[in-house]
Amino acid sequence: MIKQLFVERLLDFLKEDAYPEDVTSRIVSGINARGIAFSKDSGVLSGNYFLVPFLDYLGFKVEQYKRDGESVSYKDVLLVFQGKADELLSVERLTLNLLGKLSGITTATATMVRLAREVNPSVKIAGTRKTTPGLRLFEKYAIEVGGGDPHRFNLADAVLIKDNHLALLGSIEEAVRRAKAISFTKKVEVEVSSYEDALRAYKAGADAILVDNLKPDEIVPIVNELKGKLIIEASGRITPENVKDYARTGVDVISSGYITHSARSLDFSMDVERA
Amino acid sequence: MIKQLFVERLLDFLKEDAYPEDVTSRIVSGINARGIAFSKDSGVLSGNYFLVPFLDYLGFKVEQYKRDGESVSYKDVLLVFQGKADELLSVERLTLNLLGKLSGITTATATMVRLAREVNPSVKIAGTRKTTPGLRLFEKYAIEVGGGDPHRFNLADAVLIKDNHLALLGSIEEAVRRAKAISFTKKVEVEVSSYEDALRAYKAGADAILVDNLKPDEIVPIVNELKGKLIIEASGRITPENVKDYARTGVDVISSGYITHSARSLDFSMDVERA
Amino acid sequence: MIKQLFVERLLDFLKEDAYPEDVTSRIVSGINARGIAFSKDSGVLSGNYFLVPFLDYLGFKVEQYKRDGESVSYKDVLLVFQGKADELLSVERLTLNLLGKLSGITTATATMVRLAREVNPSVKIAGTRKTTPGLRLFEKYAIEVGGGDPHRFNLADAVLIKDNHLALLGSIEEAVRRAKAISFTKKVEVEVSSYEDALRAYKAGADAILVDNLKPDEIVPIVNELKGKLIIEASGRITPENVKDYARTGVDVISSGYITHSARSLDFSMDVERA
Amino acid sequence: MIKQLFVERLLDFLKEDAYPEDVTSRIVSGINARGIAFSKDSGVLSGNYFLVPFLDYLGFKVEQYKRDGESVSYKDVLLVFQGKADELLSVERLTLNLLGKLSGITTATATMVRLAREVNPSVKIAGTRKTTPGLRLFEKYAIEVGGGDPHRFNLADAVLIKDNHLALLGSIEEAVRRAKAISFTKKVEVEVSSYEDALRAYKAGADAILVDNLKPDEIVPIVNELKGKLIIEASGRITPENVKDYARTGVDVISSGYITHSARSLDFSMDVERA
Amino acid sequence: MIKQLFVERLLDFLKEDAYPEDVTSRIVSGINARGIAFSKDSGVLSGNYFLVPFLDYLGFKVEQYKRDGESVSYKDVLLVFQGKADELLSVERLTLNLLGKLSGITTATATMVRLAREVNPSVKIAGTRKTTPGLRLFEKYAIEVGGGDPHRFNLADAVLIKDNHLALLGSIEEAVRRAKAISFTKKVEVEVSSYEDALRAYKAGADAILVDNLKPDEIVPIVNELKGKLIIEASGRITPENVKDYARTGVDVISSGYITHSARSLDFSMDVERA
Amino acid sequence: MIKQLFVERLLDFLKEDAYPEDVTSRIVSGINARGIAFSKDSGVLSGNYFLVPFLDYLGFKVEQYKRDGESVSYKDVLLVFQGKADELLSVERLTLNLLGKLSGITTATATMVRLAREVNPSVKIAGTRKTTPGLRLFEKYAIEVGGGDPHRFNLADAVLIKDNHLALLGSIEEAVRRAKAISFTKKVEVEVSSYEDALRAYKAGADAILVDNLKPDEIVPIVNELKGKLIIEASGRITPENVKDYARTGVDVISSGYITHSARSLDFSMDVERA
Repeated sequence: MIKQLFVERLLDFLKEDAYPEDVTSRIVSGINARGIAFSKDSGVLSGNYFLVPFLDYLGFKVEQYKRDGESVSYKDVLLVFQGKADELLSVERLTLNLLGKLSGITTATATMVRLAREVNPSVKIAGTRKTTPGLRLFEKYAIEVGGGDPHRFNLADAVLIKDNHLALLGSIEEAVRRAKAISFTKKVEVEVSSYEDALRAYKAGADAILVDNLKPDEIVPIVNELKGKLIIEASGRITPENVKDYARTGVDVISSGYITHSARSLDFSMDVERA
Repeated sequence: MIKQLFVERLLDFLKEDAYPEDVTSRIVSGINARGIAFSKDSGVLSGNYFLVPFLDYLGFKVEQYKRDGESVSYKDVLLVFQGKADELLSVERLTLNLLGKLSGITTATATMVRLAREVNPSVKIAGTRKTTPGLRLFEKYAIEVGGGDPHRFNLADAVLIKDNHLALLGSIEEAVRRAKAISFTKKVEVEVSSYEDALRAYKAGADAILVDNLKPDEIVPIVNELKGKLIIEASGRITPENVKDYARTGVDVISSGYITHSARSLDFSMDVERA
Repeated sequence: MIKQLFVERLLDFLKEDAYPEDVTSRIVSGINARGIAFSKDSGVLSGNYFLVPFLDYLGFKVEQYKRDGESVSYKDVLLVFQGKADELLSVERLTLNLLGKLSGITTATATMVRLAREVNPSVKIAGTRKTTPGLRLFEKYAIEVGGGDPHRFNLADAVLIKDNHLALLGSIEEAVRRAKAISFTKKVEVEVSSYEDALRAYKAGADAILVDNLKPDEIVPIVNELKGKLIIEASGRITPENVKDYARTGVDVISSGYITHSARSLDFSMDVERA
Repeated sequence: MIKQLFVERLLDFLKEDAYPEDVTSRIVSGINARGIAFSKDSGVLSGNYFLVPFLDYLGFKVEQYKRDGESVSYKDVLLVFQGKADELLSVERLTLNLLGKLSGITTATATMVRLAREVNPSVKIAGTRKTTPGLRLFEKYAIEVGGGDPHRFNLADAVLIKDNHLALLGSIEEAVRRAKAISFTKKVEVEVSSYEDALRAYKAGADAILVDNLKPDEIVPIVNELKGKLIIEASGRITPENVKDYARTGVDVISSGYITHSARSLDFSMDVERA
Repeated sequence: MIKQLFVERLLDFLKEDAYPEDVTSRIVSGINARGIAFSKDSGVLSGNYFLVPFLDYLGFKVEQYKRDGESVSYKDVLLVFQGKADELLSVERLTLNLLGKLSGITTATATMVRLAREVNPSVKIAGTRKTTPGLRLFEKYAIEVGGGDPHRFNLADAVLIKDNHLALLGSIEEAVRRAKAISFTKKVEVEVSSYEDALRAYKAGADAILVDNLKPDEIVPIVNELKGKLIIEASGRITPENVKDYARTGVDVISSGYITHSARSLDFSMDVERA
Repeated sequence: MIKQLFVERLLDFLKEDAYPEDVTSRIVSGINARGIAFSKDSGVLSGNYFLVPFLDYLGFKVEQYKRDGESVSYKDVLLVFQGKADELLSVERLTLNLLGKLSGITTATATMVRLAREVNPSVKIAGTRKTTPGLRLFEKYAIEVGGGDPHRFNLADAVLIKDNHLALLGSIEEAVRRAKAISFTKKVEVEVSSYEDALRAYKAGADAILVDNLKPDEIVPIVNELKGKLIIEASGRITPENVKDYARTGVDVISSGYITHSARSLDFSMDVERA
């Protein structure tokens, strides 16, 4: 990614916290300081990909940092940077909020990937659009660092005919026919909730089906029938607790809102010292 | 709040998901539809305060909605609105993501407030700045709907001298002295982690102390000494599990990052029908 | 599309021409006027889809307009709207510039579609990313009104491995392998310029090939071999003069930069009268 | 011009094509590359004035480039820059689209200037406001590189009383009288379409007249009468085919929408190699 | 002017004061109120042209207002509007700050115009670019309401060769020659500070001269020589105290930074009552 | 403050004056120049804190500058910077407008502070929200450089219950009760205009009172009663002429709209020479 395309949004986040000014930090103006972000938690890090160029853009000197995708444990140093104390304290909270949030998503994704692949080595864990408003770019990235598939970035990316589209149109066949006319560049996926609808979607020419809210043993016959003929994605309240059950069905993709909307932020903190 | 001051940000969120276009929903163009957002979860609702004027701004007709602060249970209808089917489906995900996220925070806050006040009827539950980047406005609001105190909106609001400021300056007295010179309009709070420092902050003239990461029984002597002389706030990994223990100490305020960074989103969904 | 998502950009265009003020039009302030946009040209109209809600947003009363996709001839009325004379004259040029530009693209696309389908009824005419900076949204739309396929909106939409990617990576197989790992939601297309490479792309698992800069008779063997196995797209200086030759090869898609970068703007004008 | 005043708009253009990410180019991440933009066409170059500082701003190293205003022929190298392969490929299309578009305008302007001055050495070729929405700044610049006069940048620049103003006001004299009251800093030009109106505009005190849609031999008497007394501008479907006829009339300025709305983009391409 | 082109900036001003929220005004939420802006001062009003549509845009009901250009005296009502009490109080200060500031400029301009025309009925009083950063649009407008000439809106409007240009170039003749090549649409004015330079500017073909920092009796010979041949503008610390002396010289234009940078804001206030 | 948080606004100011281009300064393109801002006035400087990083951001080389807070007299050099002549002349006016405006506020503040402290050494001079729309950040800063207290930055900072709130609510007690529920982090101040109301505000628990529009001898009894029990602020047309009278009353704070809305801009100018 090109730095300037996301720095702007990070600046917007910083203004939310520090505009017009961090009044408290005036009390340390004139001092040079070093900030040492460290972990009070364990998991897989992400966020430095964005933060390091951002801190550089703001004029800080980044002295050391872990790469995104590295594991972190209690007391591990994540990022060390230097600059004016008042400015450094102004970015402390954004730095920790973003690293904690994204690393939480990466960690949850990595856990899901590891569990699912123990029983289905080629299965993909994918995100959804159940992301935090304004953080889509960052959260999709965090999924990828965790070994997941980002799925659609937004509604322009690919065609996914959902239950609500079908409720309005009535017919899977008609829906797929219309969808295939949109652009030859887009895959067409159909959300289904029965074996019969899965077959109808396949016959209508869908590139993929999203089997939503079925139990693993309801999914198995669909996989038996359609595996290799189109992409089979399962979703619906899939978490680390039940992901293996879904993976064992042989589906190609498991998508999970859990890894974004329910991932726990990692607990990171920062020490500041004179530099 | 004035609608135009937050509509702009919601539009930005919508662009993230639906710009340049929801390609799938072209297949239902020309149809009028009604969207019925409903709960698959229970808790306290928030978000309609923002969404109702936003949907109105986009040209939808909002037919019915629950007020923020109302309790919601399984199958409860949250919001009913009508418009062009393709446009309605383009805003479905943002609507649910925002309602789910904010209601989760409101619910977590309300739970903390209820628990804490069972043992300390006048205690306040406050948020922190551990919010999601870009969502500060909305998350602080969600805290207030849940009965919480928003605490500082950002670094310009009030003076809070934290451990890192003290690490750089050395002296609580010097820190408070400098802080009080900033503006007579700002309260000055000092983070302390011992009885001795709490007293020093008080003697230096602080308006409040933030007792961070002490155990309840370490807080009690501080409360005994300083209650009523300044505001006493406790924080540090306080969750529904231990909030009563902290409330019992008699502190005035309990602040909690948990209610923002770890609140589970409520599970909301939408049905769409022809209108 | 949701109006508010493009009105903002149109407002930006208007500011380019009319900010801070149309000084000349002060001389007609206090007069109410009607603007009548009409054609001095013939072709297929597009642009009213954007302009009608925009003029409404600015406070004008749109009295009459042709739908996008309708044919227009000399003297045909395109759009009639009413409002304050000075404001109306301030938007005249933008209205005509946008309608003329987009209708030019729609007309060129419709011509290409008509010609190509005379010899290959199922062929698609697609756009490219050779659009005017800042006008991508509008130009892709104009292509669709003309019966064309918009192709990728931008670089995030689908995977298209071009000659320059291959020049850096060396191997089609390696490129496709990496590309397929990006996301199961994206089609993978490969640009090829020989029969051999077309086959290698197919065997590597590409969803589509873009046969670039080959002559029609060089394309025929590729179509004979791969038709129905993947999508075959031809491109490279294809214009109304030679589009039939390419269409006859039996390719699925013909993409053309000509329809955006070289389409002649239609010549539209506006009469203004007292209202 | 100050770089920061246009870099922002170029960044906006880049986001249109490359936000959130060029997914394809991930397959070449980790490689350093050199991009070599070259011409497959001939004409006069423009655009590097904007692109060179923009590429620098994005972190690329520009190694070599032709100056705006230089002639280019088939195979000529236009711009060579180095950077990360994935980022370089993300800006390739914008680079070529902008250079091709602007050089097309510069080339068309230069042709018009050359032709017109063969028969009227002091005549000016001027642009109009028939520019592409959002590209006004760049297109006016391209006209100047081609030796043309930019004419009004926008509606705030100078007063030009057009047919539609006159249709509303009725009287040239009244229109000029009002126009001269706007500001002593603005020239006042009047569009006329007859000898009589030309004289009336002159007598009313106009600084210039725009003789619109008259034939060359209808313009001659106006020039004979008014040359040297005010500026005489001719316009109305003037192209390279008929520009000499208009130049021979002795007018001071010939303005042409053709050089912006109908100029053919030059055909430029880019090679990418490992660096 | 088109409302949407300035409403955006007013919204930005409002955010400066009221984002994220007017916390105090929560104490009056649920009440409907009427705001009555009135004068504690006397002068000429301006600003309602902008504020009335802005208040309407925000959802207030404007019940009554004075037109810009009307005289106001002590206790005169300027603007009456109705809406939610908390929102109304959130816009009170911006309303008064803007009305007071602009009316101050209008009043100062009107005074200068009145004084100057007592001795030179055709003289114009013009503004300068010595305006408040960010308020140019509004301040130029206020000058015009006061009967003044706005002069250049910005550096793109017209050519004004100042002392610093001449210091770099050396020669008035060379400067004017270059300036006249920029565009036939721009007037060329030259700053001069002696009789000799005034003549050289005239001979070089300037449309206007700006006689800067000369005393009235030094200006008289210039007027005697050049009146009617080009526009003669005087400037340099001209205030109500000395404007008649400059007007008597017979110059065409007197420009004054005083009317923007030194105009006293009028003292306006607002009463709020239940509605 | 972090530079990037205000550079953006300065860029916006620059666009107001120099977008799309300073046409005049083309006549000096190709020349390198040095700009020397100097004082034609005396007072206390402010603004370089913002301008120096901004000029650096634009690519100029700042060679020398006075620190904000330093006194300046006639002929004193304020700022010396070097760069391309045409760009340098494009920023000249913004540089002088901003320095002049802010230094005027700083100077007025410093004067008020000096006068007031001659009779009341601990009194604070505070700003108000009567600032120029869009310049709040800069004007509050200028107040602080002059030794003043910035008071509330905006309506979110602290609670100030004004006469209009009381007019709607009726009761000081009720107003304070509601205000204290907003957040424990905010001070609550009440505007009062009598001894009785001052006492009621104190008894209701206000942290401060704003005694508005009382004469000094009406304030004295309030100070006698409440000094040291809460903060006492006086306001209402307080200027250098009467500030001592108010300071002598013993109030803690004197707030003054005069120092922003009525401060005279300092008269600064710039010489430009070849570099």
